[in-house]
Amino acid sequence: MNAPHDWLQRFHERDPIALAKIITIVENRQPGYQELLDALYPRTGNAYRIGITGPPGAGKSSLVNSLVPLYRAEVKTVAILACDPTSPFSGGALLGDRIRMQDLVANDDGVFIRSMATRGSLGGLAQAAQEVALVLEAFGFDLILLETIGVGQVEIDIAQAADSVVVVLVPQSGDVIQAMKAGLMEIADIFCINKADQGEADIFYRNLQAMLSLAMRDWFPPIVQTVATANQGIEKLKEAIEKHRAFLGEEGLRARRRARLRAFIQELIEQELRVRLWDGSRLRDLEEQLERVWEKTVSPHQVARHLLKQLGISRAA
Amino acid sequence: MNAPHDWLQRFHERDPIALAKIITIVENRQPGYQELLDALYPRTGNAYRIGITGPPGAGKSSLVNSLVPLYRAEVKTVAILACDPTSPFSGGALLGDRIRMQDLVANDDGVFIRSMATRGSLGGLAQAAQEVALVLEAFGFDLILLETIGVGQVEIDIAQAADSVVVVLVPQSGDVIQAMKAGLMEIADIFCINKADQGEADIFYRNLQAMLSLAMRDWFPPIVQTVATANQGIEKLKEAIEKHRAFLGEEGLRARRRARLRAFIQELIEQELRVRLWDGSRLRDLEEQLERVWEKTVSPHQVARHLLKQLGISRAA
Repeated sequence: MNAPHDWLQRFHERDPIALAKIITIVENRQPGYQELLDALYPRTGNAYRIGITGPPGAGKSSLVNSLVPLYRAEVKTVAILACDPTSPFSGGALLGDRIRMQDLVANDDGVFIRSMATRGSLGGLAQAAQEVALVLEAFGFDLILLETIGVGQVEIDIAQAADSVVVVLVPQSGDVIQAMKAGLMEIADIFCINKADQGEADIFYRNLQAMLSLAMRDWFPPIVQTVATANQGIEKLKEAIEKHRAFLGEEGLRARRRARLRAFIQELIEQELRVRLWDGSRLRDLEEQLERVWEKTVSPHQVARHLLKQLGISRAA
Repeated sequence: MNAPHDWLQRFHERDPIALAKIITIVENRQPGYQELLDALYPRTGNAYRIGITGPPGAGKSSLVNSLVPLYRAEVKTVAILACDPTSPFSGGALLGDRIRMQDLVANDDGVFIRSMATRGSLGGLAQAAQEVALVLEAFGFDLILLETIGVGQVEIDIAQAADSVVVVLVPQSGDVIQAMKAGLMEIADIFCINKADQGEADIFYRNLQAMLSLAMRDWFPPIVQTVATANQGIEKLKEAIEKHRAFLGEEGLRARRRARLRAFIQELIEQELRVRLWDGSRLRDLEEQLERVWEKTVSPHQVARHLLKQLGISRAA
């Protein structure tokens, strides 16, 4: 039972152990992971994906904790993929507060939770998260919650792999600015002001609304106020997500998913290209050229042009 | 006086208008910018670079405002490059608080300030910032301050283009965690707790120190407490930077700069490769294949492998 393909049969029989095992194979890029994904791919595409992102401490885990039972009441199966592009410095320790979430699964096999942390390059996590999301889709979950920690580019990439993106903020003055700076404003389909019983939530609400009104778009992101720990406003949040889904419609959803698929394939190619590029003799060549740049015999751009020429990839016709 | 090369003569005569013009050409990647950089490159390498990074609102601009006069007192010329990888949503408006900095330049031609904001891809800003830093070095500045806004990957990339990196935090509980998550802990050579008169600065200091003690490294980053707006602790910050410089020594500095140069060249090549890759017929080919993936005839990885094969870049020997 060790070859990747042996797990497929059990996966198709909806064995959660096979699901966990296949995710591990994909996450760690173990031999055969691409073939597994190839085999699963035809079964994907039937889950709705909700991205939940925002600065650390905004209470995203609590929100997920409150949101999931509402979907479970509709007998929808839910997978939660919590992604932590944490630096190697912290290991994966910051996923700790996610342990509380395990309550959700304790007596319910309709809920599945998986945490992913960075291994090596940051770009790799967004890619791996998308691959794991495909596995979850193929397993048959109705709903996938993509939860991220923090507001970096990786989080944005992961959130953009969702059909509806919820940006969670707390009513603190710096938060809107920071979210803006991080590029969260563009990707938000729904804003959630969590911990709305703290701080100056009303002023925050008005500021956020004022800022949003500056941007013209078809869909004006609704702002929902919640207190996740007290289960307040969660129904409204769910309604807002459903409204966005209805707004997208068949056509909008298709457009979004196609764009996502295109970006995913492009990234697959670029990543593999990078791996192939900096290998063996090419890395040695770079090292030699680096010596000449260091001595100021040539410039960095001259070396780049030289190495590119050797690669022989020309602009396409 | 319009061709890029015409500006070079005036640049060599240390004409600040030519400096500004050449930076604009480089920043906007106008025709001839690479040749300009090639021409300037031999004059680079004589400036010390200090990176100043940390979450928004930490008071980085105020710190720079207080730090620069100390260096000017030593008759060092200083260039400040403020980089804002702000989302297109905000334009470049967040650079507003930088306007105060103009006071530094008002009566002193030994100080030069330039702001850069994102145009298009985020990756491009880190690259462009490094190119502009080379221009500033060639102009003859003794010191370059690379200031960034926020804590994203781009900020980290830019900060890593410095010889000494100062990470600025304010004594708020969430800040250390956030800095950790953003990967700031690994790149910090010096920590600066600014606004040390606010919040629980002492507890924050001890927490930060405790967290740092978990990581083994040759250089234990000193933690300096400042109140930039009241000019407190700035001398100490400068001393800490100088201590780090002394720690690096000739050899450490060379190793750091060589590694930076290598990464810079690699990124130049990868960026150009991406541009060449998704061009004309290849993009059309991708679109055709995407249709097949959409219909689930093939998987994303199968298409990626197919397109990679066509490219003909194999692993190097």
